[in-house]
Amino acid sequence: MTDASSSGTPGPADFPVVGVVGGGQLARMMQQPAIALGVRLRLLADSRSDSAAQVISDVVVGDYRDFETLRTFAQGCDVVTFDHEHVPTEHLRELAGAGVLVRPGPSALVFAQDKSLMRERLSELGAPLPRWSPVTSVADVLAFAEATPFPLVLKATRGGYDGKGVWVVRNEHEAAEVLSHDQVPGFIVEELVDYARELSAMVARSPSGQAVAYPVVETVQRDGICHEVYAPAPGIDEDHAVRAQQVALQIAGELDVVGMMAVELFDTPDGVLVNELAMRPHNSGHWGIDGAVTSQFENHLRAVLDLPLGDPSASAPLTVMVNLLGGDLDDLYPAYLHCMARDPALKFHMYGKVVKPGRKVGHVTATGTDLDDLLERIRHAIAYLRGDIDE
Amino acid sequence: MTDASSSGTPGPADFPVVGVVGGGQLARMMQQPAIALGVRLRLLADSRSDSAAQVISDVVVGDYRDFETLRTFAQGCDVVTFDHEHVPTEHLRELAGAGVLVRPGPSALVFAQDKSLMRERLSELGAPLPRWSPVTSVADVLAFAEATPFPLVLKATRGGYDGKGVWVVRNEHEAAEVLSHDQVPGFIVEELVDYARELSAMVARSPSGQAVAYPVVETVQRDGICHEVYAPAPGIDEDHAVRAQQVALQIAGELDVVGMMAVELFDTPDGVLVNELAMRPHNSGHWGIDGAVTSQFENHLRAVLDLPLGDPSASAPLTVMVNLLGGDLDDLYPAYLHCMARDPALKFHMYGKVVKPGRKVGHVTATGTDLDDLLERIRHAIAYLRGDIDE
Repeated sequence: MTDASSSGTPGPADFPVVGVVGGGQLARMMQQPAIALGVRLRLLADSRSDSAAQVISDVVVGDYRDFETLRTFAQGCDVVTFDHEHVPTEHLRELAGAGVLVRPGPSALVFAQDKSLMRERLSELGAPLPRWSPVTSVADVLAFAEATPFPLVLKATRGGYDGKGVWVVRNEHEAAEVLSHDQVPGFIVEELVDYARELSAMVARSPSGQAVAYPVVETVQRDGICHEVYAPAPGIDEDHAVRAQQVALQIAGELDVVGMMAVELFDTPDGVLVNELAMRPHNSGHWGIDGAVTSQFENHLRAVLDLPLGDPSASAPLTVMVNLLGGDLDDLYPAYLHCMARDPALKFHMYGKVVKPGRKVGHVTATGTDLDDLLERIRHAIAYLRGDIDE
Repeated sequence: MTDASSSGTPGPADFPVVGVVGGGQLARMMQQPAIALGVRLRLLADSRSDSAAQVISDVVVGDYRDFETLRTFAQGCDVVTFDHEHVPTEHLRELAGAGVLVRPGPSALVFAQDKSLMRERLSELGAPLPRWSPVTSVADVLAFAEATPFPLVLKATRGGYDGKGVWVVRNEHEAAEVLSHDQVPGFIVEELVDYARELSAMVARSPSGQAVAYPVVETVQRDGICHEVYAPAPGIDEDHAVRAQQVALQIAGELDVVGMMAVELFDTPDGVLVNELAMRPHNSGHWGIDGAVTSQFENHLRAVLDLPLGDPSASAPLTVMVNLLGGDLDDLYPAYLHCMARDPALKFHMYGKVVKPGRKVGHVTATGTDLDDLLERIRHAIAYLRGDIDE
């Protein structure tokens, strides 16, 4: 274990230091179970005003794209993990080569960073996928369209998130326009899946190979951004739920994932199809802070520390989480008076971010038994916090 | 609201800063709901290695007994509250006089600081109390003993906690020895109550007068230290539970308490009797982090900020919490491997403290339906963490 004096975080020296690269809300929400477990977080953030930097005492301000910054940061840590997937793969390889415990490791993380590599590897594993192909030209797209007609989906292989880097194209002209984005390093094309709903299967996996699966949840996306999550997915076909968990556990094992992994899936009448992978705590798992025995944030810490994993079971019959995306109101705090008075059982989670339109600035959760009741209550609070309604 | 730049805590300026005096585990556990609510904590701690100072970024190191330190600290805060009750009453009065929002206020807090004033005031309110009297001499004790025979309880009026400042005396000689403690500012004598068990009734109250009552819990004390808590108190007479909640709500209202208040009671065949008051989050409420919709730490923050209070209901049929008191093992972390592997559903809460024999260094909680099952599981983990057992 690291000497406390060298890490900047005082406290009993027998508890490890987990380095987290990235100061967003995922790192912020790791701090709550870190406090409970006695585990110390060390943060590499872009600025002291970052979401997580506000609530962690040991903060290094620096650029995660700079290898020297990463290397120095890692010296104070027993293990290094991530708030996002944007750290250059070559830096992670070099860190790992220098003996730093990087979890998930670069050879796993690359499949969450590069959609083409991910699709290729999952194809080899026999995971259920939409029809897809790597493309470099409009001619490639048209060749794909012969068997799988437009509309099609084009995705940037790297750098996309929250709907960024994903385009639905209806014809050759639109495909050409997307492919002309010269800052995108590569593309894949996929069939536009006609799904009944979107699901997320989250698993935690430790270096020693232990893995646990969370209940499969339904996610409701708007404009490519996760908007609402219902846990567990109401009325889901039990075979589809089990298959989704199996697929997620298989992927985690085969790719040697360490930490949390989210597998986003399309639920279709014929079964589930893998859409995206994320190797970190994920928006579709926030419900578990209030609705699972062990949250994804705690299990991520346990996993990267190679501690035995916590119980991922739901602790309530139904948990609903709705994201708070920035709206008309700059000041969120005054809305608490109305929202808390109206509903004492709502759980508010704010990220300490300056409000910008469409930006994820928080989420609200409630547990219960009735989906409509929970949705009415949470959506009201969200609308009030955004300034969409004033009563 | 305070300008973010002046408080040292970056973040959106519309969220308030709560100043917490005292860096113990109660302040530490306030940080978890503060993160969720987006509320910023500013801590006055004795040292950067204090339990709470490890997990809060905005820390002032200073002596709470020094008025100037308190005054400067308070300048960065929208409201000031407490981790302990040891701040001199006169300092609190002066702070409040200078316009600082001190919650709970000094006129309420004094009843948690001074047992004689508390007993006197509760007598006026008609709260059920053990027979008691202020005493300054052995003669006073002997006069009391005429109607209420030995053994009796002597208590220091100020400064006691966790069994410190409480003595059971069997005769005049023992009473004389206790009264000779010249560092004790004053004493009261009380009957030694023959109780079936000890209870705690916790309430949260806001400045606007809203109050909520938590389920009444059973507390098991050892050597005057809270050892185990069962929530709600198993098999309690419903009338006694309701009476305990009523008494707690009445006291909170009459004394104008703001924040959390714990009323510790004796449960006797004839009803409940008030033992102690604490005006802050309390050990008997830690269960609620994992077992209540809104924890005492969140409701304390909501109350001192005059936000509407959260739902204090239990979210599980039964929650058991056992304190981890320092034992033979200095290093707690390695025990996680065994304890977490044996029981993935246990919730560990560590305080970041150096282990000393008998010191409260953490607690373990679990929820379920069967008291014996929960006790076996948690006690095993506690014994392993202490080094009492090794398998």
